[in-house]
Amino acid sequence: MPIPFRKGHGTQNDFVLLPDPDGELDLTEARVRALCDRRRGLGADGVLRVVRTKAVPDAPEGMDGDVWFMDYRNADGSVAEMCGNGVRVFARHLVEHDLVEAAEFPVGSRAGVRAATVRPDGQVTVEMGPVRLLGTSTATVGGRAYEGVGVDVGNPHLACAAEDVAGLDLTAQPGFDADAFPNGVNIEFIAPAGPGAIRMRVHERGVGETRSCGTGTVAAAAAALGGAGELTVHIPGGTVHVTVTATGSTLTGPAEFVADGEISDEWWAAQS
Amino acid sequence: MPIPFRKGHGTQNDFVLLPDPDGELDLTEARVRALCDRRRGLGADGVLRVVRTKAVPDAPEGMDGDVWFMDYRNADGSVAEMCGNGVRVFARHLVEHDLVEAAEFPVGSRAGVRAATVRPDGQVTVEMGPVRLLGTSTATVGGRAYEGVGVDVGNPHLACAAEDVAGLDLTAQPGFDADAFPNGVNIEFIAPAGPGAIRMRVHERGVGETRSCGTGTVAAAAAALGGAGELTVHIPGGTVHVTVTATGSTLTGPAEFVADGEISDEWWAAQS
Repeated sequence: MPIPFRKGHGTQNDFVLLPDPDGELDLTEARVRALCDRRRGLGADGVLRVVRTKAVPDAPEGMDGDVWFMDYRNADGSVAEMCGNGVRVFARHLVEHDLVEAAEFPVGSRAGVRAATVRPDGQVTVEMGPVRLLGTSTATVGGRAYEGVGVDVGNPHLACAAEDVAGLDLTAQPGFDADAFPNGVNIEFIAPAGPGAIRMRVHERGVGETRSCGTGTVAAAAAALGGAGELTVHIPGGTVHVTVTATGSTLTGPAEFVADGEISDEWWAAQS
Repeated sequence: MPIPFRKGHGTQNDFVLLPDPDGELDLTEARVRALCDRRRGLGADGVLRVVRTKAVPDAPEGMDGDVWFMDYRNADGSVAEMCGNGVRVFARHLVEHDLVEAAEFPVGSRAGVRAATVRPDGQVTVEMGPVRLLGTSTATVGGRAYEGVGVDVGNPHLACAAEDVAGLDLTAQPGFDADAFPNGVNIEFIAPAGPGAIRMRVHERGVGETRSCGTGTVAAAAAALGGAGELTVHIPGGTVHVTVTATGSTLTGPAEFVADGEISDEWWAAQS
């Protein structure tokens, strides 16, 4: 039985989508790792299994079983709760394959249900939940300290002001206050980019610099706004738009598909 | 018109194959770069266009026009002559798609015609051309010098003996004698791995450490043999088998396919 897949990305955070409405795929950790391996597999930051909530044994309780569930797996095979870029790709896939009836619909995840809206131009808006500004702190790059503010978007961020982000060397882990962030922290560097816009680069906890980080753009916008408002965020992987209110936030950005196909039976069987 | 593709690898040197028998694809440098981009494309070390020699304007003169030509493009969009791992994947693709009649057949390339043999188990043997041992030289890693021998396999190599290759830090460019190798050099580190076998790691010129290098395994085997003979070479990406004679060499190894599919029209059109 051939296994269909789709390859796509949201601001260059890339994913292998696996349509699996009834949860029949034997998606082991080894297979996720092999799929995401960029030399011996398809290559991706993660796998998005497209499955009905009722077919997901570890879905949060109380969710509508018919809602499409984004079963997100990290490249190391572990399960993850949510991914702000992945959910855009997931939502656009649902629309393009007529799996939802309206342009606005709920998407299930281990973090709960999020509302998604897909526009005719392919841009997708996703609910990102509440944002909480914390105290100030400092990140250090190349011996220089950058003042910033801690932001909680479900995960910890430190958004730091810089005059210019292009010249920063983010190949090494920036220094940060381990007492303030005992579990590590995603660190954003932000600079003004004209009216209503900022430029941002991000060093993700445990990963290194990436071309995009969904929660990071929300954290950066909230820090730059000092609270509620809206802002365009230019990141290395593209451009997104963030709104922040007293009770929640949204992230709007592109979702692009590169290819559709089928995974080789022989290859799949060899990754047990 | 959908554009079919295939993703495969040879000892984890990975490729996007594009079937294009009559040379009709508008395969620009920008599209090659986008296809090989591991975030916004399919991701690969290179593109192998599967085309008849007669449809390749820059094919070497005197080649049979009906021979299948491996139009190899590097990830940066430039054309390349030959790739010892790519040609195995290319040859197995021809057999699996019934594009050749015998199990042994010629493959065209910018380096000329090479004989390829595909075995029922998927292992592929390819002619790699003459090998020439040069003088001794030295590579330096972590302040320590490793004695080696220069090897010409159409491109320059320096194969160095090490007691153990696992512990070497090849993240930085190893030191080498720039007078002996004015155009740079691929540097192999080799250690014994039982009777008839060696273990190898390679730092490729202009690339860094890779999981596999076809000409590098041939160079390493020739250096370890001190001339003609045969040897199994274990590399990070798998295992290959090399034979060296006074007039030529062969490389035998796996060719694996991960997936088949079609590239999105919209995506292809956007990469002009």
